[in-house]
Amino acid sequence: MKGEDLPVTRRRSREFDEQRERLNRVVMKYAGLGTKRFFGLDDQVYRPGALPAGTKELLGLVASLALRCDDCIAYHLIRCRREGITAGELEEALAVGLVVGGSIIIPHLRRAWDLWDELEKEETGGAEGR
Amino acid sequence: MKGEDLPVTRRRSREFDEQRERLNRVVMKYAGLGTKRFFGLDDQVYRPGALPAGTKELLGLVASLALRCDDCIAYHLIRCRREGITAGELEEALAVGLVVGGSIIIPHLRRAWDLWDELEKEETGGAEGR
Amino acid sequence: MKGEDLPVTRRRSREFDEQRERLNRVVMKYAGLGTKRFFGLDDQVYRPGALPAGTKELLGLVASLALRCDDCIAYHLIRCRREGITAGELEEALAVGLVVGGSIIIPHLRRAWDLWDELEKEETGGAEGR
Amino acid sequence: MKGEDLPVTRRRSREFDEQRERLNRVVMKYAGLGTKRFFGLDDQVYRPGALPAGTKELLGLVASLALRCDDCIAYHLIRCRREGITAGELEEALAVGLVVGGSIIIPHLRRAWDLWDELEKEETGGAEGR
Amino acid sequence: MKGEDLPVTRRRSREFDEQRERLNRVVMKYAGLGTKRFFGLDDQVYRPGALPAGTKELLGLVASLALRCDDCIAYHLIRCRREGITAGELEEALAVGLVVGGSIIIPHLRRAWDLWDELEKEETGGAEGR
Amino acid sequence: MKGEDLPVTRRRSREFDEQRERLNRVVMKYAGLGTKRFFGLDDQVYRPGALPAGTKELLGLVASLALRCDDCIAYHLIRCRREGITAGELEEALAVGLVVGGSIIIPHLRRAWDLWDELEKEETGGAEGR
Repeated sequence: MKGEDLPVTRRRSREFDEQRERLNRVVMKYAGLGTKRFFGLDDQVYRPGALPAGTKELLGLVASLALRCDDCIAYHLIRCRREGITAGELEEALAVGLVVGGSIIIPHLRRAWDLWDELEKEETGGAEGR
Repeated sequence: MKGEDLPVTRRRSREFDEQRERLNRVVMKYAGLGTKRFFGLDDQVYRPGALPAGTKELLGLVASLALRCDDCIAYHLIRCRREGITAGELEEALAVGLVVGGSIIIPHLRRAWDLWDELEKEETGGAEGR
Repeated sequence: MKGEDLPVTRRRSREFDEQRERLNRVVMKYAGLGTKRFFGLDDQVYRPGALPAGTKELLGLVASLALRCDDCIAYHLIRCRREGITAGELEEALAVGLVVGGSIIIPHLRRAWDLWDELEKEETGGAEGR
Repeated sequence: MKGEDLPVTRRRSREFDEQRERLNRVVMKYAGLGTKRFFGLDDQVYRPGALPAGTKELLGLVASLALRCDDCIAYHLIRCRREGITAGELEEALAVGLVVGGSIIIPHLRRAWDLWDELEKEETGGAEGR
Repeated sequence: MKGEDLPVTRRRSREFDEQRERLNRVVMKYAGLGTKRFFGLDDQVYRPGALPAGTKELLGLVASLALRCDDCIAYHLIRCRREGITAGELEEALAVGLVVGGSIIIPHLRRAWDLWDELEKEETGGAEGR
Repeated sequence: MKGEDLPVTRRRSREFDEQRERLNRVVMKYAGLGTKRFFGLDDQVYRPGALPAGTKELLGLVASLALRCDDCIAYHLIRCRREGITAGELEEALAVGLVVGGSIIIPHLRRAWDLWDELEKEETGGAEGR
């Protein structure tokens, strides 16, 4: 279902979503009120307001890059695409993250671009069958 | 041997222990006195004293969650179970870690609960064949 | 008012509270809903439940030590005292934090004990005028 | 000179600039080519391109908040003001940083808003003499 | 080609290099000037000068260990070998990193020695066919 | 006494030592065996062995810079001077730390060079009276 209306980010981002949702169900099986509220809050702060959703995703992405969390980077990268962030905008945002956080960030930067590149190929590649 | 008297944490925690012990042997093959003393100290501070062992494991777990080290989280999670920490106590401790450390911690929280859930299933699951 | 019913932690912890409250008012002057909810959640997770309040403060303290935030350490240290944590329990908790986080933590450990020592002196020292 | 054409951020941001420039001269007295190039690069990545300068300053700010560097936060906060970022935009960006990085970030958030509040007062306060 | 003149670090370090180069090509496909300059600078600071190349690799290694980046650790470990750093020198450098960074570093230390041990075996093992 | 035989690092480094020793006495007043052993270990790993003491201090310095601890940076900087590390060697080591850790490190780098510069002036300045 989600896969249908989001042709941009097909296979790999869908796999990412599915794994994430499966694990979120495990967390929620045990979660107390505090944990549940945190998860709600984590959605809320990315909703568009004074800043557009795309800018907020870039902020979440660069914070995740600075703190070097691959899952968080992948999550925000996929959402940046969904919000229409271009490769040029992404590159400038990641360059800020790279300079702030240093070479220690390079392995995460590599995996970020590798994911982006794959998403680009899925999108512009053949239509169905993928 | 260890596997026999610790039915609680069977397969997955045993695999974790074995991999950890194999790598510790590699470290010890090269280790100097400083490294060896550090490893000794790392055992010592978790022994029960003014605080019970379970509380110390929770402290090690939350510190590991705050610093986002999956291996360390898994290690202390397994030991929390062995010390009789309940799912409810664990949840409250992890909620403190989540609020202190933020959403960057969520991927580690997911993997922590996924491991706990698997340990629960191993324990309460069928007897043999495992 | 607060100073009266908390004789344990008089002068220095009261100054700490006052500075903290002044700055919290500045934050709240600008805060949106997300920020306000986060602050509420940050209170909630330390309330007693399956774990007693003192243990939760120790968890918050060790997480703060691991992440090396002096303000957060001072905050939880003062609350540990209010919850009746003893010097012996504190020492064991901080020793876990020291071994997990390494020598980089020592300057924070020094300031933590210096604050604790001052709080002890205030408490056991002369009665009034302080 | 800089003080004249930047009425927005008068006293406190000018003091910040002066201290920063004095220390940069010390660094440059000893700096080799690598260090000099890094400082050049650190300017370059914030120049407007596919993303406007204000967005880049917000990215630098949130990355600095996530990594909890007060000097870096103050630096980007002052530049955000110079680029016309509003209090509402700032609040949303900092809320993303707070949720990503957790309560450990709160002391830095307090100092960030305290600086912003002071800059607001300097700006809207009496005209000259300050 | 590279494999021929670097018999020391055969299979595993070559695989590491190949993966790294493939991903660097992806980064460079999208990289702007800032990112490219950062990558150039990242090479430059390890060139021998007042300090020999081996010492610089040890510095990069210990910084990477302190910041807990496995890819960066593997990269500098392989380069340490190429610069003739001995197991004894490596052990002392890693012991400094361990004490500075604490037990949270142990999983990375294990993987570092496991890689070193494998490189030793490749080198001293059978000649061809590998 | 210590002041006499260490003319290199007079006033400021002596003040640093005194403050550090006073706080260490507070830590030791409360310290358990684990904490004491950690402090012993923290001395031990910097003793000369396969690597000279100066190189070990540089490693401690760069690890401290990467983890952004001003006290730890000052401590190792002073010891680097005592071990005869030159400004040129220091610069190259700090440049590695800067590139690994990114611009977030710059405020610490400024304070490191400011201390070094002051130590240089104390040393080469007038003889007595300081």
